[in-house]
This record gives sequence, structure tokens and C-alpha cells, in this order.
Amino acid sequence: MINLGIIGATGYVGIEIVRLLQNHPEINISTVVSHSFAGQKISDVYPNLKNIFDMECDQLDIEKISEKADIFITALPHGVSKEVIPKLIERKKRVIDHSGDFRYRSIEVYEKWYNIKHGMPHLLDMSVYGLPEFHREKIKNAKIVGNPGCYPTCSIIGIAPLLENKLIDTKSIIIDAASGTTGAGRTTDLSCQFSECNENFKAYKVSNHRHTSEIEQELSLLANEDIMISFTPHLVPMKRGMLCTIYANLNLEKSTLELIDMYKDYYKNDFFVRIMDEGKLPETKYVAGSNYVDVGIVVDKRLNRVIVLSAIDNLGKGASGQAIQDLNIMCGLPENMGLVNCGLYL
Amino acid sequence: MINLGIIGATGYVGIEIVRLLQNHPEINISTVVSHSFAGQKISDVYPNLKNIFDMECDQLDIEKISEKADIFITALPHGVSKEVIPKLIERKKRVIDHSGDFRYRSIEVYEKWYNIKHGMPHLLDMSVYGLPEFHREKIKNAKIVGNPGCYPTCSIIGIAPLLENKLIDTKSIIIDAASGTTGAGRTTDLSCQFSECNENFKAYKVSNHRHTSEIEQELSLLANEDIMISFTPHLVPMKRGMLCTIYANLNLEKSTLELIDMYKDYYKNDFFVRIMDEGKLPETKYVAGSNYVDVGIVVDKRLNRVIVLSAIDNLGKGASGQAIQDLNIMCGLPENMGLVNCGLYL
Amino acid sequence: MINLGIIGATGYVGIEIVRLLQNHPEINISTVVSHSFAGQKISDVYPNLKNIFDMECDQLDIEKISEKADIFITALPHGVSKEVIPKLIERKKRVIDHSGDFRYRSIEVYEKWYNIKHGMPHLLDMSVYGLPEFHREKIKNAKIVGNPGCYPTCSIIGIAPLLENKLIDTKSIIIDAASGTTGAGRTTDLSCQFSECNENFKAYKVSNHRHTSEIEQELSLLANEDIMISFTPHLVPMKRGMLCTIYANLNLEKSTLELIDMYKDYYKNDFFVRIMDEGKLPETKYVAGSNYVDVGIVVDKRLNRVIVLSAIDNLGKGASGQAIQDLNIMCGLPENMGLVNCGLYL
Amino acid sequence: MINLGIIGATGYVGIEIVRLLQNHPEINISTVVSHSFAGQKISDVYPNLKNIFDMECDQLDIEKISEKADIFITALPHGVSKEVIPKLIERKKRVIDHSGDFRYRSIEVYEKWYNIKHGMPHLLDMSVYGLPEFHREKIKNAKIVGNPGCYPTCSIIGIAPLLENKLIDTKSIIIDAASGTTGAGRTTDLSCQFSECNENFKAYKVSNHRHTSEIEQELSLLANEDIMISFTPHLVPMKRGMLCTIYANLNLEKSTLELIDMYKDYYKNDFFVRIMDEGKLPETKYVAGSNYVDVGIVVDKRLNRVIVLSAIDNLGKGASGQAIQDLNIMCGLPENMGLVNCGLYL
Repeated sequence: MINLGIIGATGYVGIEIVRLLQNHPEINISTVVSHSFAGQKISDVYPNLKNIFDMECDQLDIEKISEKADIFITALPHGVSKEVIPKLIERKKRVIDHSGDFRYRSIEVYEKWYNIKHGMPHLLDMSVYGLPEFHREKIKNAKIVGNPGCYPTCSIIGIAPLLENKLIDTKSIIIDAASGTTGAGRTTDLSCQFSECNENFKAYKVSNHRHTSEIEQELSLLANEDIMISFTPHLVPMKRGMLCTIYANLNLEKSTLELIDMYKDYYKNDFFVRIMDEGKLPETKYVAGSNYVDVGIVVDKRLNRVIVLSAIDNLGKGASGQAIQDLNIMCGLPENMGLVNCGLYL
Repeated sequence: MINLGIIGATGYVGIEIVRLLQNHPEINISTVVSHSFAGQKISDVYPNLKNIFDMECDQLDIEKISEKADIFITALPHGVSKEVIPKLIERKKRVIDHSGDFRYRSIEVYEKWYNIKHGMPHLLDMSVYGLPEFHREKIKNAKIVGNPGCYPTCSIIGIAPLLENKLIDTKSIIIDAASGTTGAGRTTDLSCQFSECNENFKAYKVSNHRHTSEIEQELSLLANEDIMISFTPHLVPMKRGMLCTIYANLNLEKSTLELIDMYKDYYKNDFFVRIMDEGKLPETKYVAGSNYVDVGIVVDKRLNRVIVLSAIDNLGKGASGQAIQDLNIMCGLPENMGLVNCGLYL
Repeated sequence: MINLGIIGATGYVGIEIVRLLQNHPEINISTVVSHSFAGQKISDVYPNLKNIFDMECDQLDIEKISEKADIFITALPHGVSKEVIPKLIERKKRVIDHSGDFRYRSIEVYEKWYNIKHGMPHLLDMSVYGLPEFHREKIKNAKIVGNPGCYPTCSIIGIAPLLENKLIDTKSIIIDAASGTTGAGRTTDLSCQFSECNENFKAYKVSNHRHTSEIEQELSLLANEDIMISFTPHLVPMKRGMLCTIYANLNLEKSTLELIDMYKDYYKNDFFVRIMDEGKLPETKYVAGSNYVDVGIVVDKRLNRVIVLSAIDNLGKGASGQAIQDLNIMCGLPENMGLVNCGLYL
Repeated sequence: MINLGIIGATGYVGIEIVRLLQNHPEINISTVVSHSFAGQKISDVYPNLKNIFDMECDQLDIEKISEKADIFITALPHGVSKEVIPKLIERKKRVIDHSGDFRYRSIEVYEKWYNIKHGMPHLLDMSVYGLPEFHREKIKNAKIVGNPGCYPTCSIIGIAPLLENKLIDTKSIIIDAASGTTGAGRTTDLSCQFSECNENFKAYKVSNHRHTSEIEQELSLLANEDIMISFTPHLVPMKRGMLCTIYANLNLEKSTLELIDMYKDYYKNDFFVRIMDEGKLPETKYVAGSNYVDVGIVVDKRLNRVIVLSAIDNLGKGASGQAIQDLNIMCGLPENMGLVNCGLYL
């Protein structure tokens, strides 16, 4: 049994990790840390957990919580991580972090897109980008895993096979994406109020969303050239779910079926990636609540352009589920342990 | 391992049973029967199940499916059950049924409220009303369990302790209830369309909903007198969830805290009933996706009236979860086996 | 043309008044006052108004705005009104106020339920409760109109004919109500976030909501005796709309049709009250966006209990529409001027 | 006063025309025709209209209805129009039609994308594509106006200035669009059920939606060359609203501000097109319930790609509002008469 600490347990990412781990046979949550709710039972904050997981929230006292667990997941507001993670590393703890801090190979790129100084440059070398489908081996022994953003997870998995197989014009990639509201976290922003969100659809941060740079980093690695993409996120009046609609010009003629077969082969060892058969398309309800990524492919023969649709639960494979997948890998457990629940549909 | 057949597996109740049983260590779904989708994979109808449960739907051929399972759950349109259940019973199969047919002790009451002739009066004697909190012992050996309606489950659990302890004026019971849209099943009714339901709230079947009679039957048993109630269902623009707001005049003065203590004691052996502490109230998101019933109690001292709030997932404890709870009891398994997942909250 | 000032124009009540008055032939909005957005165009805060109503928001400078208008609508946070209204009255302005301050005849009742000292007791005598269906004559010449709460408007109109005609047991009144999220105003409360509200239904402030006292005051006036009621509000995952489900025991036998006829007669001079025919029930989508109140009536013969269903738009007849109705009356205009738009339905 | 007949008045497009025309000073609805509800009051079908517009639905008897009106709007299921429109034309009536039948210059294109034989080729010459911003002059005297599809309206207005000014690579146009559920009409399709739609987001008809050809026709006219585009529609869990996110590669370097100025100039005579200032983006709630089109523009300097966002109400400018705008033009009335209501926002 592995003892896990969750720091920032009462945010949406933290609490989804708590929920998902109720089914995990080998991971024991040994401390839940919450600045806002220290001293309160977590099931008083989230009464769905009553009688199931009633642990009291700890304060962020590194000394004390270090004694309770060997591995930590941090889901903290930007800027707070740098007070916490170095101290955990000093104490020989392993960390899966949800901030942007450990997602980048280049400090320059990070500082340009996040518009702040990186707080822990000395730790970057021991960190790995936590997308198991592409960095599984390195994750196994990583001291720090930077859990990917939701949009990057959905986008990279959607486009990677085309890039790595040199099938597309690398200058033509456009990712049009949409997310549910939990992507904004447990916020009190006016723009996330029900009265402002329901019966509404909008794009936001057009051409300047931070996740653009994260996607570009990973696509560049895959393509072995510098890739720049258009990325446009939208907000959907739903709580969970994310869909990326990805466009790229094909370099040569391929049928929908040929590409589907190629994708199936590419991901044949990736449990959570489901390639849909011809004529079928992903919907977010197929993956909501789960750790699956559904990918559908359509070739528009008229234009010789491919449209890839990839769907995840932004809180599942886009955050908390993926953290557990990483945790499994780091602990030498089967990658899908505790994560084999299907999407909700209803 | 117990082999279970689900007849009507592609309706919302059936598919939720399929989803929930993915986590069950002792129940094996050995046949899924669907009239509409016979010959198709169930994961083609509900792609959330892809790679998880891809079983092909069987036709409703009693002979063949009888060989595949020892116990059956039937979730069929009204009127079809009577063609199926007698034949299963003949073949020594046990049945958990979701129609109204086996929920009544009195054929007269059934026929009056359903306005049809009962199709299987000869089987009534071997059937039990499947509300475990009140009929656990009888369910154990029942040949047929009539799984309760969602509104009755939520209402009866909410009001029972007051009635059995003679604390309320039995003529003063009013149940004001609200349900999500999945309560209507996998229908194509215009009134259940998104364009008709969203941004809307309404009452329906005021004073003549069939579940009134089911609630009255069980409350009368508990009170040992004929109980008549007001029952008003409403439709909420959400998919899952049910809340009953129950009013009754107290016979004597009791504080909120006294009643809460009494409820906690009353349900101390019922795993799925969670009595909320003073000042806390149930919300449907605390129970959505789970088999829990949350109950909150408020005494209005000014009027010496008690208001009980009870919440369930209409597809969980209100249908599919409860069927599995019954199934566990019938099979001698721990009542909560495979059902200890918390509500979704998000 | 009457010059109107709206103080607190960028809250939801204020902005709905702005929207509705775009169609009004005799009212001219001559100043919009907003503390938060002073100096900005109102159409920058609410871009739906762009090119239609681009007025710049004024600061709350009583001297200056007094010169701009003869009549004011105040939609201010609790506690701010008392700094504003006395000064407007000094300057001979007439006021329609949306706080609770001018809804009560008894300061004691107000102070008990609001748990604060009343800030303007000396102005109470010149104020009128602004429910036109019951106080039309007094509103005509009122200096101050206390615009009723949304729940009281919906409840009182629903129950009044039964009370005034002595048809019900006055101790048996139960009002079970539900509102959309705009009822909470333009707030940033966590509990009103989309991620917290969608796919959820709950009751709140059970047995202690302030509107209880407002309803009781008006019902007591109508019944000519002290009336106490049960009132339970619920939150529906929708933006606009309110439904009250009202229960009362009948004193004598009456059919549904008899009561419907009685209601139609009672409200025959009230343009905005629509009594539904037998077998028809209100839905909030019928009145959303409009100033109508729809009332449906069902007698449960088994129990000799009447169930009344009344629906309004909480922002329409429940706030902004009613303010304009009052304004029309105060200005000697036809009561329905500028308000004859139908509900949205879609 | 112009007498108008609406054929297919009880569908969503028809009923929105009825709703909008309540404010129109010069148009009188003189007959509402409904196959399904002939003989019933339209306010029994849509009770929001009660006391406001209670006209009885006529049967589709061309002879009789021809006597009642001079101009007709037809909003009929595909295939029915051809039985109706020729007879109206014979009787010298003018028609605004909502089917695809009169949107095409080329019968071949129509028949290829609709996969049926055109039923009224002889009437094509007297028809005009009813997008006033581009065909205002021809609409004035048109006998038949083919009211554009919702996606084409939103797309064409969004992209036209770039095309006509030769600013973009015409092979690079990608339109990623999303619509609310009323776009599917008053259907009983399973996929439009609340239980299937809420908390879900999906693309549909990827690369083969009929509106692609309609958009291409108009863009080709504007560009004076054959244009082919990628078009991907998505379904948003909301009732009303449409957003197009349009991508194109710029031929030369332009700043966001330069393009915004160009757009403002291009549409300076188009009342309903609102170009947003730099840094502001459209949201569907700004236009819901109105006839406005909001357009926002962002240049991604890194890629020299422009992203245009255009938003309409699919039932407003996307259907019913536009029909009234066409009607005004055909009747020599000010184009915006009866249509100057702002979006709902809430």
C-alpha cells in the first residue's frame, strides 16, 4: 500500500483525485492538505464523501505531512507551488504537480507565456512531462512529474500520429477546442457564474492561451521541427468534458479508413486511447468521469484535409485521472489500476 | 460468481445497471437483452462502454437466455413484462422487475391507478416490494422483487421514522418532489427535448401521479392505518437527481436535533441512508451517480411543522443502484457490495 | 416623456429594467447610476446593449442625478438605500425601491426577519407595497413604492383569491417554491457558480427565508387575521423563472372548475394575471422574459386539498417588470404600457 | 398594414416569427397555418402567447389562406414546400421560404448536397438569396426569397470583408461552428433529448453538412472564384445561439485593429452587424433573442492568421429575425422595423 498526500485537496482537481482513488486497491490517501479548510473534515466541504472519506484536512505543514506520505500530488494555485515542492524534494518525496511549472523544457518559453519568473529552475532537470502515452519510461523513475494541461492532453493525443508519420503540413495545424466550466477550477469569477454561463457559448483567450505553448513544445518534439499552431478555446455550458476539433492539410492522399487504422496501430499499447470506427465520432459524455480519450477521424476528400476529434474529461484524463495514471506508473503498478471505470453517458 | 441477465439493457435503467456492475466482484453479466438493438454490441449503442463492456445484445428468446443466467433484472416498457416474467419463473429463475406490476399488495389499487388489468396476479404472492430498508428479510428469499419507483423510494425513506414513531398528524403529509429528466426513461417525447426542458421548471401529473398509491401503500403499512398523501412531482432541467421536500404537522413539540437523533438511530443499520447534521441540507449532486439517500430535517418551531428533505439519484437508489442492492441481498452478498462509490458532486 | 433614473443599473434587476424600457414609448431613461462601472458605457458592461443603449454610467452623486430625472428606481445592495433614498425624497423625487426596506408595515417584523435596524423609519408612512393587483390605488400617488420580492409576488397572487373568499383553512398553507439563479443577483458566490449549480437541485433557507414574513404580512391583510405559512425555496439550474406550488386544505367542497372560474373572476381586471384552463398547468418558460403571472389550479378530491401553481419570471413580474408596472401606475400611464411582450418559451 | 400568412407556424422558426412580430407596427399576421394543430388556438400550443396572440391555426388550404394574406412565410419540412409555393406564386403571392430550395443558383449543387431532385426548378429564376447585407437590392422586388441557413448567415457575414478585400488565402478557410439545440427544429429525435444533450458537446456531420455548399456558393460570388471551405458544426447544450470561429491565412500583414476598422467600414450601412472593438469578443448571450450579428476579430501575429468570431441567435438572424428583415425590405419598410430589441444576456 502506497501512502499518498494530496496538497490542495479541496479544489476540483484535488477532490476528483480523492473520488477516483476510492476504487484504488494499492493507493492509500494518508493526508489531505487544504489551506482554506484545514481542521475541517473533507466530507463537510464535499458532502458526497460523507461516510466514505471523512478525513480531516491538514494544514500545509511540510514537516508533518512529510511523515505521512511518500509521494505527493500538488494541485495548488499558481505561485504557491514554489514554496512547497522544493521542500518536499529535499525530504526525498516524489511529486506530481498540476501547475505549469514542470511542463516545460525551456524556461524562456515558460516565462514568456506565463509572464512570470520561474520559481524552481533548479528542479527542472529532475522533472518529466507527465503524458504517459509519450513519456511513460521517463515517468517511471521521475522525481517530479509535471501533469499536463487538459487542452494539451486532448490536443497532443489527437494530432501526434499524423505528425510523427509526417502526413500533414506542419504549418496548417488548427486546434479548435471547447471545455466545460470545471476547467476554471473552484473559482468565484463572475464569468463562471451560472447566470452568466448557461445558455451561452463563447471563445476566450483567442491566440494567446498559455496551453498553446505547451502543445507546441510536445508537437515539436514529435515532429522534430518547430511547430506553431492556432489554438482557440471555447467555454461550453457544461461542467465536465473537453472536445478538440483539429484541422490539418494532408501531405498525400489518405482515406479516413487508412488513417483510422494507422491511429489504432499507433496507440495499440495505450489502454486509455480509444480510436473510433469510421462514421463514429466522440462525444464528451462518452468519457465524462473516466480516464479515456476518444478519437474520431474524418478525411475531407474535397480538400485533402483531415479533421481529428478528440474528447476527454477535463477533470479525468485532463487532470486527476491522468495524475493517477502517472502515479501508477511511478509506483510500478499497472497503468490502469483503479481507473477502469467507463464514462458516465448520463 | 453469479450470472445475471439484464432484459431491457439499453434503456437508461438497464444501462446504469451495466455501468454500476463493472465494479462488482461477484456479479457477472452473462446476457444483455435488447429488443431494439439485438445483434449489436451494447458499446455501439452506448460508446462510453467501448473496450469495457462490448457484449452483443441478445434477442428476447426466453429459452436461450434462460440457459445463460440464474437471475434476471427486467427493465421493460409497461405491458411487456407479463410476456416475460412468468416464463422466467417457470424456469426457476429469480427476477427483479422495474415495472409497477410487483410493487402492490392490492390488485385493486394497482388497477385503479394504472388503469389496466394486472397481467400476472398469480405471481403476486411470491413477490416482495424491493425496498431493502423495510423489507430486507423478505427480499433474501424472494422469487420476484418489485423494484420500487424512484419517488416512492425517496419519499418513504424520508417520512418513515416520523410515521412509525407516531410523531405526526397522518392527515397532514405533503410530498413536493422534483426529478431530473432521466426519470422519463430513454424516450423521444417532445416534452423531454432539450429545447423544451432547458431553462424551464414545471409540475406535472398534479394529484394523480401513480407513485402516490405506491407511497401510500408503504406508509400505511408503517403507520398501521390508511394514509393518504398529497404528492406533486416537478421536472428539473438536469439529467440525474431527485429531491423530496416533505411536510407534516408534528403531534408534539420536538426540536430539529431531537428528530435528527431519532432518524440516525432509526437508520443505524442502513448503510445507504445518510442523516445530515443540523444546519445541513441535502443536494442532489451529493448523491448523483451513487446509491446513497441523504436526509435533512428542519423543524419549523413557529408552526410545529417538520420539513424533511430527502435526495437520491433517480437512476441510482431510485432504480439501478437499488436493483443491485436487492440483488446482493438475494444472493447472500454484503448489501453494499459494488455500490460504495460516492456521489459525483461535479 | 418621463425622465427616469436607475440607481444600481448594472445589477441584474437594473439591467433588466433597461432592457424592458427599450420598448416603452413614454419613459426615457435619463441616467443610469452604477458604483462599480461609473464612467463606463453600460453597453461595455452588457454588450447586448451595444448600439441600442450606450449611455455612460453616472456616479452616485445625488445632486447631479437629481437634476436629470423626476423619478428613480433603486436596485441597491441592502444597507446602501438608506444613504440614498432620504436625499431623493428631500429633493421631491419619487422612488421605486427594490430592497426590503419599504415592503413592511411593521418595523418590528422587518427588524426581526432582517436582523438589522431599519434605516428610514420616518419614510415608512409615505411608502406603499408595490403589488399593483392589491394596492393599485395607493401606488398612484405614492412617494415611495417598495417593490415586492419575487417569491411574495408569485405566492400572494397564487393564494389570495382562496384566502379572501374564506375557502381554506388558514393554518394549512404551504408554499413550496423554486427559482432560477438570477434571483441571487449579480453575485460571485461559490454556490452560484455553474460548476456548483448545474445538474443540481436543492432547497435553501428552509423555514427561515425573509420572504416568509413579507408573504405573511400581505396574506394577513387579505384574510383579516394573522396568517403563518410554511415557505421553502429551492434553486433550479436555470437562469430565469419561478414556480410556486401552494397547498391548502379546503373548508368546503369545491371542484377544480369552480375554483378556476372564481380565480378568473377575481383577477378579471388584472391584465398580467392569466388563469389557466382546467387540465393546464403553468411552466416557467411561458412567462420567462415577460411580466405575466400564470396560475393553474387543481383540486385533489381525495383529500379536499387545493394545489395552486403560480409561475413568473423572477426578473420580470418578480422584479423589473413589476417596477415598470408600478412606474406606469405612478405616472398615470396604462398599467401595461411597454410590457405587453410574451414569454420566451424557447 | 401588410397582411402576412405564416405556413408552418407552430415549428420553432414559425413561432419565433409570431413572437417577434408582436412588436411590429406595420405587419399584421392574418393567418397561421399548421398541419398538426389546425383548428387549435396557437396559444394552446404555445401558452406563452395566451391573451397576446390567440389566433386559431388554419389548415393548409391554399385557396382559403390566399384570400387572407398577400405575402407568406413558409417554414415547412423539406419536401412539403413544393406542394405549396408554386400555388402561392400562381396566386400572385410573394413568399419567404425557409427550406434549402431557393438558396441555390445551381440546381446541380443543390441536388448533390441535398441528394434529392429539386421540386421547383422553374421558380428558381424569380428567387433571391435572402441575406440582406449582400442582396438587399434584389430582395426588394423578389417574388421568392430563400431565407439563408443559420450557419451560412453567421459564416458569410463573418468572412466576407476578408474575401472581398482579397486579404486571405482562399484555400485556407476553416469554419468551426457551434449551435444551440433549437437549430434542429421542433423534433423528437433521441439525440436532441435533454438526457442525451445536457452535459455533452459533440461535432456532427463533419465535412458533409449541407450548409457547406450554401456558404461556398456565396463566398465564391464574393471572391469571384470557386471557394471551398472546411465546415464543422457542433452541438452546444443550450437552446438558442450560434458561434462561428473562422480561420484564414492572411495574404499580407495586418494588425487586429486594421482589420476591425476595415470591417466597421465594410458594414457601416448594415444596421444589424456590430463589429466589436479590439480585445472584445462575441458571446451568444449578447445576441440571443435579437437580430444582431456580433463580429470579433483577432490576428495571430505569430502565424499571420486571422481568427474571426461571429455570433447570432440561430432562431433570430439565423432564421426568424432575418425573415422579418427580408419582409421589411420586400415591403419597402425600414429594414430594422420591429427588430430593434437587444439580446437577452440573461
